[in-house]
Amino acid sequence: MQRRIYLRMKSLEEARELFFSRFDVNAMLPPEEIPTAAARGRVTAAPVMARWSSPAAHQAAMDGFAVAAASTFGAGPHNPRYLALGREAFPINTGHIMPPGTDAVIMVEQVPDPDADPIAVEAPVFPWSHVRRVGEDLVVGEMALPEGTEITPWAQGALLAAGISRVSVRRLPRVVIIPTGSELTPVADLEAMPWGRLPEFNSVILAGLVEEAGGIPEVRPIVPDRPGALVKVLKEAIAAADLALINAGSSAGTEDYTYEAMAALGEVLVHGVSMMPGKPTILGIIQGKPVMGNPGYPVSAALSFEQFAAPLIAGLAGKRLPPRPTLTVYPAQNLPSKPGLTEFIRVTLGRVGDKVIAAPLPRGAGTITSLVRADGLLTVPALSEGLEEDRPVAAELLVPPEEIEGTLVVLGSHDNTLDLLANLLRRRDHRLRLSSGHVGSLGGLMALRQGRAHLGGSHLYHPETNSYNVPYIERHLPGMPLKLINLAWREQGLMVAPGNPKNIRTIRDLARPEVRFINRQRGAGTRLLLDYFLKEEGIDPAGIRGYDREEYTHMAVAVNVHSGTADAGLGIMAAARALGLDFIPLAPERYDLVVPETTFDDPRFKTLLEVVRSREFQEAVEALGGYDLKDCGKIMWEQ
Amino acid sequence: MQRRIYLRMKSLEEARELFFSRFDVNAMLPPEEIPTAAARGRVTAAPVMARWSSPAAHQAAMDGFAVAAASTFGAGPHNPRYLALGREAFPINTGHIMPPGTDAVIMVEQVPDPDADPIAVEAPVFPWSHVRRVGEDLVVGEMALPEGTEITPWAQGALLAAGISRVSVRRLPRVVIIPTGSELTPVADLEAMPWGRLPEFNSVILAGLVEEAGGIPEVRPIVPDRPGALVKVLKEAIAAADLALINAGSSAGTEDYTYEAMAALGEVLVHGVSMMPGKPTILGIIQGKPVMGNPGYPVSAALSFEQFAAPLIAGLAGKRLPPRPTLTVYPAQNLPSKPGLTEFIRVTLGRVGDKVIAAPLPRGAGTITSLVRADGLLTVPALSEGLEEDRPVAAELLVPPEEIEGTLVVLGSHDNTLDLLANLLRRRDHRLRLSSGHVGSLGGLMALRQGRAHLGGSHLYHPETNSYNVPYIERHLPGMPLKLINLAWREQGLMVAPGNPKNIRTIRDLARPEVRFINRQRGAGTRLLLDYFLKEEGIDPAGIRGYDREEYTHMAVAVNVHSGTADAGLGIMAAARALGLDFIPLAPERYDLVVPETTFDDPRFKTLLEVVRSREFQEAVEALGGYDLKDCGKIMWEQ
Repeated sequence: MQRRIYLRMKSLEEARELFFSRFDVNAMLPPEEIPTAAARGRVTAAPVMARWSSPAAHQAAMDGFAVAAASTFGAGPHNPRYLALGREAFPINTGHIMPPGTDAVIMVEQVPDPDADPIAVEAPVFPWSHVRRVGEDLVVGEMALPEGTEITPWAQGALLAAGISRVSVRRLPRVVIIPTGSELTPVADLEAMPWGRLPEFNSVILAGLVEEAGGIPEVRPIVPDRPGALVKVLKEAIAAADLALINAGSSAGTEDYTYEAMAALGEVLVHGVSMMPGKPTILGIIQGKPVMGNPGYPVSAALSFEQFAAPLIAGLAGKRLPPRPTLTVYPAQNLPSKPGLTEFIRVTLGRVGDKVIAAPLPRGAGTITSLVRADGLLTVPALSEGLEEDRPVAAELLVPPEEIEGTLVVLGSHDNTLDLLANLLRRRDHRLRLSSGHVGSLGGLMALRQGRAHLGGSHLYHPETNSYNVPYIERHLPGMPLKLINLAWREQGLMVAPGNPKNIRTIRDLARPEVRFINRQRGAGTRLLLDYFLKEEGIDPAGIRGYDREEYTHMAVAVNVHSGTADAGLGIMAAARALGLDFIPLAPERYDLVVPETTFDDPRFKTLLEVVRSREFQEAVEALGGYDLKDCGKIMWEQ
Repeated sequence: MQRRIYLRMKSLEEARELFFSRFDVNAMLPPEEIPTAAARGRVTAAPVMARWSSPAAHQAAMDGFAVAAASTFGAGPHNPRYLALGREAFPINTGHIMPPGTDAVIMVEQVPDPDADPIAVEAPVFPWSHVRRVGEDLVVGEMALPEGTEITPWAQGALLAAGISRVSVRRLPRVVIIPTGSELTPVADLEAMPWGRLPEFNSVILAGLVEEAGGIPEVRPIVPDRPGALVKVLKEAIAAADLALINAGSSAGTEDYTYEAMAALGEVLVHGVSMMPGKPTILGIIQGKPVMGNPGYPVSAALSFEQFAAPLIAGLAGKRLPPRPTLTVYPAQNLPSKPGLTEFIRVTLGRVGDKVIAAPLPRGAGTITSLVRADGLLTVPALSEGLEEDRPVAAELLVPPEEIEGTLVVLGSHDNTLDLLANLLRRRDHRLRLSSGHVGSLGGLMALRQGRAHLGGSHLYHPETNSYNVPYIERHLPGMPLKLINLAWREQGLMVAPGNPKNIRTIRDLARPEVRFINRQRGAGTRLLLDYFLKEEGIDPAGIRGYDREEYTHMAVAVNVHSGTADAGLGIMAAARALGLDFIPLAPERYDLVVPETTFDDPRFKTLLEVVRSREFQEAVEALGGYDLKDCGKIMWEQ
């Protein structure tokens, strides 16, 4: 179990410099000549000179008659000139070549009787009127495209017009991707994957990123964690490719094989980069070709690819990846980060008032959904200890800026109907998105107070008054003009394994020593409800096994019960039903949207409210089970 | 020769409304299910729910030993707990599934002797430390992707992690492209194209644009202009496609066939749109499918495609084309436009001082290079009579904004070496571009005075002082701090057909009645030189046939001589040599860059000057012929 330690870990900047300085991307691949008609998106390897002029001859620019302009001089409505067809005037269509001796076109609309012969001309025309002259677009020998230019469809047209049927372009780099790891199953076998194995999906991510960077990916079969296995595959692969990516799988043991294989066949330049995610990156050179050991966690793999592989691949193809647009944003919370590491934090973004608020997504390198859901990427520099709440910082945008303007941010308690709402909102108006963050009901109220959200989602029961939400709002948001709009009544209860093997019936059963409970986080309405039930029953929370194990969503609680790591959890019926768990109803509770007046007046919210009140939404909620929609869309209270 | 007249021409907005309102792009194509691994860039047709949790079981997040956390409580450096391998502690690698009964990982680095059995544990671990818990990334049943989402490589990974090996996506629309026109030759036969025919390259442009919009293009063979031919092809094509584009070729006669075919098989919705380029656009519907008759000129075809076809194709694929970024720019000159037409003007852009200057490119619909060279697109609204010089207006950007910041604008006289310079500048620093506008030497000085250019290019001879440029600068740019830097001495002379059939020897021969001359535009240094020669010889310009025929560049003059539409023109030897013309030298002349001090101090110009002074540039210029580089790169004068 000895492990190689990253003795020589490099900063991100050092690592990029050490790696990139070894390759002259403009000289590594020979150019290739391909048909112009197939060259869209390719990059010219040399200046392209026009072989013909375009047009190659004078052409009619209108339908009409080609004439010698001089023959019309002096013509007028009362003294027309008559021109004989075939000698002095030639019927001609747009684009056709002008007959010898002619230098102007009379438009057909200006000839009184276009079927007569001779035709009458009632006004003089200037030489070269309605004529596209030779070389108007491109002159033979003129540069049609400079070298290093990406060929657009328009440029394809220009090249073909200039007689260039083949063009010398930069070759596309071939990138071989080598997944490694004995625990992995190819995604082609996903349906039949045995328990305990993991799907090898990083190669799919990397292949897509290679294509987006301008390379041609080739994915090899998974290499098992066996001494010598990788060396053999890598040696053969690098001979046929321009760049190699070895994906470590998720095992650090595998990384060792990668290091050893790269060191055996070439030179390791960097082993470990002080970036997060992405630390276990290995960079090297074999036979003059770049080789990269990508970390195993998908977010690490994607982000280290972006830093090290993407610029090289694009450079080999003759392209430069444009920097992502950036936007000034305000973190919704403090984001401490380890000094010495450059950290990339995935965030959702939404404009609330005049600020764009950045809410962090899970920071683990294994949560690929954090990249899928991210609207932006914050970078915490290596010398920083983190980003501060509400202190402006630049975010790299992962979505078009319009998306951010169309985003409604709901922070608060999690409810399964929010997913439905988000989907139907987008269906109703593609410019709108609902971004929901699960911070608990109280967390949502705090966010509204600080102007970090458009909406709260809240189901805070107040036992003293037997009411929902209002007392908490009066305490935490005093004087803020807002409305409570009901989304649904929902059934809270105990989720237990199918068949209820531990025979759990009431809240009292949670105190039995053999019952393992799974709790919700502090501030969650469901947790407050549990505490209320416990108090009513006179049960000490310390006596409940698992009271301290916290999850952030109903579904996460349900998964614990489903996978057997807990025997019971408190949550909504919809979550139990989604996983086929048994459910013991304890109390209906009201789930409201907390809507500040500024949001209520926002046209984006008006659309959301239309969706809430729509038949389509309500039918979809009914199908989840455990909801009562008697108050759905109603204003329950306002201040 | 009767022609259909656009009786019912529609405004751009009306035409879009009439056309788009007939199609519900979200309902036209059934979704298709495809492998997730092949779904990059596709759009989800329905919300995608996780089939598994991800991770599907608790996994080690570090290499080390899986243990029950409780078994480590109370451990310390002086009272280690000893855990037996295989019973209390299990060696585990990152990503592997936690054995039953364990809930924490002790990192291998924290175990004094990882090869011992039992291992010693010198510190307690918390439950769930270094463990990726079930559903940390995605919980079964949770929405992994909402409908209408473009699938990124990251999303492919997330879907595969959640057990989704196939995904329901929007089908890609099949777009059939039907080129028409008897005068056209397929681009495959370009090399063997007979004189008088035109290459059919619009289908290549359109196919590329279809792909960029998200469709699958299929190009049919060219349909000849023959009654009935198009109806037959269109009927069969539309049956197999989702959208059809008929390209009129460059003949208006062809348009008539398009109209008739569309009317015969379906309904014509719009015939003629008041946009320029793009007026002869026909929009219709056949069997519920959109059909578009694209104009024949390439710029018209491309711009009307962008207005009418691109949004439909993208919409069918489930995508929305992002609007182009815009930038406030200042037209370099007045741009009058016909009221009643929406005009699209292609411009080059460069930042001069604090303004981005927009210089118009040729406005003809046949000049496809105007799109290739354009950095931006200005729109003149239908109600406007044009754009005013130096009055701010929004430009749609066709290049990344960085390109504009890296652009040096040289306005003035044309010289073939400017192409070389542009190419080598970009090779030296890919962020830099040289954009040259050919407005004549005097035009360049005017542009400098008005702050519309970084550099002038000038070869103005002053006979009274027998000097170049200085007297003109003293008159037109008095007091402006600037330097004159020589680019080259070049040979001016008469270009004549090979073998000099009209036996032209001196400037006097231009006055012979059978000699057809081709002139340069007013303000061009070459024109001033001609006038000087004529004055010296006592020749009246009125006596020169063709004195009024103007071209804007040396190459354009050369093309006229080459194609036989003129017998002689005055210009530089390099242009004559490029087309194999004979050349009668008349005088060497000095071509200087006019460099205001602000430009001289600009690091971008410093790089340009390095290129001018480089061996690489000078060798390339020598190869053109007719240049003397004795002063190349020298400062000739300053004020």
